[in-house]
Amino acid sequence: MAGSDTVKFMLGEDQIPTAWLNIVPDLNEPPAPALHPGTGQPAGPDDFAPLFPMAIIQQEVTTERYVEIPDPVRDIYKLWRPTPLYRAARLEKALDLPENVRIFYKYEGNNAAGSHKPNTAVAQAWYNKQEGVKRITTETGAGQWGSSLAMACAFFDIDLKVYMVKVSYEQKPYRRALMETWGAQCVPSPSMDTAAGRRFREQEPDTTGSLGMAISEAVEDAVSREDTKYSLGSVLNHVMLHQTVIGQEAIQQMEMADAWPDVIVGCVGGGSNFAGLTFPFIHEKAKGRDVQILAVEPTACPTLTRGTFAYDFGDTAGMTPLLKMHTLGHSFVPSGIHAGGLRYHGSAPLVSQLLNEGMIEATAVTQLDAFEAAITFARSEGIIPAPESSHAIRAGIDQALAARDAGDEKTILIGVSGHGQLDMAAYQRYLAGELVDYDLPQEDIDRAIAELPAVAD
Amino acid sequence: MAGSDTVKFMLGEDQIPTAWLNIVPDLNEPPAPALHPGTGQPAGPDDFAPLFPMAIIQQEVTTERYVEIPDPVRDIYKLWRPTPLYRAARLEKALDLPENVRIFYKYEGNNAAGSHKPNTAVAQAWYNKQEGVKRITTETGAGQWGSSLAMACAFFDIDLKVYMVKVSYEQKPYRRALMETWGAQCVPSPSMDTAAGRRFREQEPDTTGSLGMAISEAVEDAVSREDTKYSLGSVLNHVMLHQTVIGQEAIQQMEMADAWPDVIVGCVGGGSNFAGLTFPFIHEKAKGRDVQILAVEPTACPTLTRGTFAYDFGDTAGMTPLLKMHTLGHSFVPSGIHAGGLRYHGSAPLVSQLLNEGMIEATAVTQLDAFEAAITFARSEGIIPAPESSHAIRAGIDQALAARDAGDEKTILIGVSGHGQLDMAAYQRYLAGELVDYDLPQEDIDRAIAELPAVAD
Repeated sequence: MAGSDTVKFMLGEDQIPTAWLNIVPDLNEPPAPALHPGTGQPAGPDDFAPLFPMAIIQQEVTTERYVEIPDPVRDIYKLWRPTPLYRAARLEKALDLPENVRIFYKYEGNNAAGSHKPNTAVAQAWYNKQEGVKRITTETGAGQWGSSLAMACAFFDIDLKVYMVKVSYEQKPYRRALMETWGAQCVPSPSMDTAAGRRFREQEPDTTGSLGMAISEAVEDAVSREDTKYSLGSVLNHVMLHQTVIGQEAIQQMEMADAWPDVIVGCVGGGSNFAGLTFPFIHEKAKGRDVQILAVEPTACPTLTRGTFAYDFGDTAGMTPLLKMHTLGHSFVPSGIHAGGLRYHGSAPLVSQLLNEGMIEATAVTQLDAFEAAITFARSEGIIPAPESSHAIRAGIDQALAARDAGDEKTILIGVSGHGQLDMAAYQRYLAGELVDYDLPQEDIDRAIAELPAVAD
Repeated sequence: MAGSDTVKFMLGEDQIPTAWLNIVPDLNEPPAPALHPGTGQPAGPDDFAPLFPMAIIQQEVTTERYVEIPDPVRDIYKLWRPTPLYRAARLEKALDLPENVRIFYKYEGNNAAGSHKPNTAVAQAWYNKQEGVKRITTETGAGQWGSSLAMACAFFDIDLKVYMVKVSYEQKPYRRALMETWGAQCVPSPSMDTAAGRRFREQEPDTTGSLGMAISEAVEDAVSREDTKYSLGSVLNHVMLHQTVIGQEAIQQMEMADAWPDVIVGCVGGGSNFAGLTFPFIHEKAKGRDVQILAVEPTACPTLTRGTFAYDFGDTAGMTPLLKMHTLGHSFVPSGIHAGGLRYHGSAPLVSQLLNEGMIEATAVTQLDAFEAAITFARSEGIIPAPESSHAIRAGIDQALAARDAGDEKTILIGVSGHGQLDMAAYQRYLAGELVDYDLPQEDIDRAIAELPAVAD
């Protein structure tokens, strides 16, 4: 099946992984525990129980190497998995690469929600269903996560209420329509439906809303109702875990292509797409197989390259447990770049720790450079990538051009986390020359970092 | 690979067909020739030469059973083909079907343009490239075709100018942005760039534009420049031909599933998606293998169920060759349903003739019934279908429910031609209860049919 002119490496349904791979056993040190936001003490299962079903809480702290994927979850994965791994033959030609510089990409946009997010959404919905949860709340910014969870909840007949950041609710009616088509209720945040929402609106009647406010609303809603839990689409350990189907498939597919990556590039916002692709390769690396792993973030929100490693809140309002991670400070507000999924002040604790332990590296690219790469990619490979994914594509192309110019042999694997068909307004602005890059002054970072919570370390 | 719980039947790249299948040898009579719009005489290759490359003109009239797919076209097909054929296990459960009523669907939305249209767009772009064509013009209504051809032209480095119906240009900026991202020029029609466009604007300064006007502009542009040809996305024989990769794959996949359809349902606008899925099965039927083939159209534009079979123009302005087809009359203006791809006054001559010869049947469904089926489909299978495809889904579900209620055994294959992610405004209106169905009075049809061109038959 996999001849030398193969461009799309496909696996059969029986090659969908049967277990998620946990990276924790490969860490040099155990991960720092989450802390209770009130007491500053390590948070236990009871602290998380109002928010998450017990199976998810166990996955959050497990040190087992593998966690079995339940059959009903794997059955739904079959709707779009295994996802294709492409040899970017047309992109290579467009970049005038020599034969010994090769680009592959793993594509997660081939499902109805259009990104990698359903990999964890389906798992989370199922565990909630198993424990009798009738209703879930969540927040969403641009809508990628909210729509993925809406689809997952439709599959398991669970009610979903999505608090969508008000400015996105108004600017992205298509994303909202996706959620409603799958049966979810979607309200602009801050709303009048929660005490927190009413307070935010009283304080600032014309607020555009923020992810922080929306999290506060979704959490309040969940803890105040017996039948309701809360769900998060990135950052936490169990979310990273669920995404590892991506990398496990990619390893099989690279072998099918008779190739092994010298370098893997993935974009990082909260970190779940990056973790999903790279953790299985990092496990191989821990066993001695050489591979460079490069995390790519936007210069406008440079958590890994300019942030600090410290305990911080997950939300702006400071209501969530404290996580030890690379952070720009929970009060940091990035400029309005179009890669909404990368505008998070922190990075997943597991990704942060891997950076500290030297298993991965990080770099940052500008918005304009990312869009330029996206156009090159779209016109050669067809797929119009999400603005988030375009950051990885930029870094991947840069790796290829550097190898070409140096005469080096190099095999590059890029994670393309989703398509950009619902982000076309951003492409339009780029093509019209209306997008700009912002410098991020060091004092803006310093100011937010000065507001980090005081925690006995 | 294909166990009993398989939901997605995938083929390898080597199973992409190597030739397109021509249905003409299976017809009882040779197809009626296209007529020159001025003389009323059969149009020869010379009449078509200003519009199309010679290879396409030959395909338009060939009686050969198979036409080989050029390797460069097949290489691009590999970016998204073979497309999946699904067992709709979750939909079957939602409909409470017994074990002996089974639904399969062939899905063409899994490419960057989101529909079946690239199957012919890539072929047409390649043949133009081979004959030295530097620039192509086309029209587009909702933008599905224009964006597919834009992607194809990006692959072969051909300039493309798309005349987009003005009201869609304004209402669907995302579709326009897709075309521009792939490098095409897109202008609202009527434009100031052609004599026809200037005339239309003079006659009616506030016109919303129409497909007929846009065709006139694209044709005028093409014939007035040496380096430019014109491209059409449906209706013509060569377009039907190119789409037959769909059905040829589906036959292999049904065999993989150890099943054979009792009935195949596909939506019909111009007819290319329907032809692509069903012609290879019709070829089997001509050889004696039993299968019912059902064309589904909207009640708002009932070409096959309420039109007449006659010579008619392809465009509203009456500039194109005359085609013998089921038509509501080129002056017929359907109501503003959201399945823009089904709002064409005629049906492909080949589809029309197959209806006359009793090889296929036709039915019509209402817009509201189609959207209701689409919601059921989206909440069980995940995929949010295009409004066009939803018509086929409606008819397929009706077939399944009738079989269930009658206690019959039945295997149903539905053609799902594309996704609806860029049609979410329509879903939003449906969910808000704002969509209505229109009765189509017989006198509206009679009036348009009375305006058919007089042709010696």
